[in-house]
Amino acid sequence: MREKERSAYSAAGVDIEAQNLGLREVRKLAQTTFTPGVLSDIGSFGALFRPDLSGMADPVLVASADGVGTKLAVAKMAGDFSTVGRDLVNHCVNDILVQGATPLFFLDYVGAGVLEPAKLVDLVRGVADGCRENGCALIGGETAEMPGFYQAGDYELVGFIVGVADRAKVLDGSRVASGDVLLGLPSAGMHTNGYSLARRILFDELGLKLKDRIPGSTEKLRVGDWLLAPHLSYLKPVAPLLGHPGLHALAHITGGGLSDNVPRVLPAGLAVEIRLGSWEIPEPFRVLQDKGDIELEEMFRVFNMGIGMVAVVAPAALAEISHRLSEAGQRALPIGRVVAGEGRVVYDLGLLPNGEEAIS
Amino acid sequence: MREKERSAYSAAGVDIEAQNLGLREVRKLAQTTFTPGVLSDIGSFGALFRPDLSGMADPVLVASADGVGTKLAVAKMAGDFSTVGRDLVNHCVNDILVQGATPLFFLDYVGAGVLEPAKLVDLVRGVADGCRENGCALIGGETAEMPGFYQAGDYELVGFIVGVADRAKVLDGSRVASGDVLLGLPSAGMHTNGYSLARRILFDELGLKLKDRIPGSTEKLRVGDWLLAPHLSYLKPVAPLLGHPGLHALAHITGGGLSDNVPRVLPAGLAVEIRLGSWEIPEPFRVLQDKGDIELEEMFRVFNMGIGMVAVVAPAALAEISHRLSEAGQRALPIGRVVAGEGRVVYDLGLLPNGEEAIS
Repeated sequence: MREKERSAYSAAGVDIEAQNLGLREVRKLAQTTFTPGVLSDIGSFGALFRPDLSGMADPVLVASADGVGTKLAVAKMAGDFSTVGRDLVNHCVNDILVQGATPLFFLDYVGAGVLEPAKLVDLVRGVADGCRENGCALIGGETAEMPGFYQAGDYELVGFIVGVADRAKVLDGSRVASGDVLLGLPSAGMHTNGYSLARRILFDELGLKLKDRIPGSTEKLRVGDWLLAPHLSYLKPVAPLLGHPGLHALAHITGGGLSDNVPRVLPAGLAVEIRLGSWEIPEPFRVLQDKGDIELEEMFRVFNMGIGMVAVVAPAALAEISHRLSEAGQRALPIGRVVAGEGRVVYDLGLLPNGEEAIS
Repeated sequence: MREKERSAYSAAGVDIEAQNLGLREVRKLAQTTFTPGVLSDIGSFGALFRPDLSGMADPVLVASADGVGTKLAVAKMAGDFSTVGRDLVNHCVNDILVQGATPLFFLDYVGAGVLEPAKLVDLVRGVADGCRENGCALIGGETAEMPGFYQAGDYELVGFIVGVADRAKVLDGSRVASGDVLLGLPSAGMHTNGYSLARRILFDELGLKLKDRIPGSTEKLRVGDWLLAPHLSYLKPVAPLLGHPGLHALAHITGGGLSDNVPRVLPAGLAVEIRLGSWEIPEPFRVLQDKGDIELEEMFRVFNMGIGMVAVVAPAALAEISHRLSEAGQRALPIGRVVAGEGRVVYDLGLLPNGEEAIS
C-alpha cells in the first residue's frame, strides 16, 4: 500500500494521532483512581469492575448521568479546564449519595470540535481528582471530535456514575414524616446550576470580567472565583450516616433549587416550610438578584442559595446526627421542617411568630 | 411574593416549563423499557437497579460510554432525530457484548442550546426503541439546555450502559491463539463511524443532498438511506455463544476500523491476516474511496468496510459456531486468521496463493 503524508481524516478535522497522544496521558490519570474492583485497564471496549458485595444482603446499583452545564463556558473564559471535572464527579457522587449509595465507578465523555490534547488532559485531570477524592474509579470514557458541531474552544463534559447500596439502606423518602427537621448543608457557591442566568447578568448586563470584584459585594470576591468555586461532595461526612434510622431522606440541591429538589423526597400529603434567615445566603446571590431584578421565587428555583444538600431528619435523631456531621467537619443548619401539605416548599420570611406571612 | 409573567431564566434561554413537558413524555418512553430490575421511576436523583445475580459465581459489571458522533449532523439534515438513539444503544450494547456481558441498564444525556421538546422526545424514542430491542432498561438520563454553547438545531447525544458477566465468561482476548479463525459479522452501513470524512466527501466535495443517489453506485442507494442506516446490535445472535469455549474473543469494529479494533483483543506475539475479497465490501465504501481519493489503509481505519463485529474462533469450534450464528439468522464469514506477529492487521489481497503480496 502506498503512503501519503496527508491523512484524509485529518483533513476532515479529526486528527487521530494527536488524540492518541492525549489519550495516553488520560489513561495514566485514570490509573491514579483505580480501586481494587477495577479489572480492566482503560481502552477495553467495555470497562470491567468487580463490585465488593460482601456484607450486602440485597445489593442495588444506583446510577446517574450529569453534565456541568455552562460552567464550562466560564472555564473556557478562564482558560482553565482543570477544575470542572471535579465539579462533575462531585455532582454525580451527591446524586447517588442521596439515594443511600456510595460510588463504585465513573465514566466520562468529552466532546469537542477539535480536541486539543492539553485541554482533554486538563478536563480528565479534574475528573480524576474528583474520583480519587471520592474513592471512585475512573474506568472508562469516550472522547469525540466532531468538527463543525462544537464551536472552537468549546468542550462538552458529561459524566456517568454507578454506586451501590444495600437495599435496606436505600433512601427513597418513604420514611419522611411531618415534624421532621430539614438540615441544610452549605454549598460552596453555585455548584453547577444557574450559570446561564448568572453569566447573562454578570457578563452581558454588567459587562464584568472574571478578575473584577462582584459589585456591591462587601466580601470583595472576584467574579471568576465565585463562578468557578467547586461543587462540593458531601460523601465523606454523610456516608457514615447512611442506614441511620433517623436519617429519613437526603436531597441534592441542583437545577430547580430548594423549591424543586426537596419535594422530590416527600411522600404524598407532606410539604416543607423553609425559614429564610435560618442560614446566611451568600452575598453574590443577593447581588445577582438585585442586579438582575430576579424574583425571590425564581432565585430559589435557579440557584441553590447557599444550601447544597438537605438532610431530612427525625426530631429524635437531630442532636446525634447534627453532632456527627459536626464531628466530621460538616456544617449543618436547621433550615425548616416537614409539614402537612401538597408537596411544595413554603418559604417563611419569619416576620410573624406564627408564620402567617409565609410566601411560596 | 409578587409574580411576573417574564421568567428571567427563560430570558437567559432556559425554558424550564417547556423542558418539563418533554420530560413527561420522555418518562413514558423510558417506562416502556423497564425490566424487573428497575426499582425507581425516572426522575430520582439516582436511578435504582437491582441486578439479578442468581447463578453467577462472580459477577463483574461491564460499562461503556459512547456518543453518536457527527451522524447527528446527518439526522439534523434529515430532520429526523428518531433513529440515532437506536444507533447509540446498539453501539453501547456491542461494546459490552464483546467483553462477554449482556446489558442491564442505560442512561442518556441530551445537550442542546434550546431543547425543543419534540426533538428531545424523538431522540429518546430512538433510545427507548434500542433499549427495548436489547432487553436493556432506560433508567435515567440528563437533559441540558446550554444557550450559546450548541448551535441552533444541534443536539448532542451521549449514552452510558452497564451490563453484567460472570467472571468465568468474561472475554478479554487471553485465549486467542495462532490459527484461530476470524468470523466477520456484516455491518448495515457505516454504523456510527467515519461520518466526518463521509460528509466532507459526499456533501462538501460532491455537493450531494440526502435524497440524491450515491454516484457510481449500481445499487441506486440514496445518500440519506446509506448514512442513516442503523448501527446493528449483535446481542441476540451472539449472546447465546458467550461462555462457549471455542469463542476466544469478540471485537466491535468502530472508530479505528478493523485495523485498530481487532488488535485490541490480541495477546502479545500475535497478529491477524485479513483476506480482502472474502466478503463483499458495500459499494458506497468503494465510492467514498474513489471520490475522496482515500488510501485503502485509511479506509480500513476510518470505516468498518462492511464488517461490524469480528468473532475470533478456535478452528475446532468453527463449524458449530458458524452453524449456531446461521440458525440465529446472523451471517458470519471467515475473513481471516490469527498468525504469529506483532499485533497488527495484514490485509492480504489474495493475488498469490501464498499471500506474498500481502499489504499492510
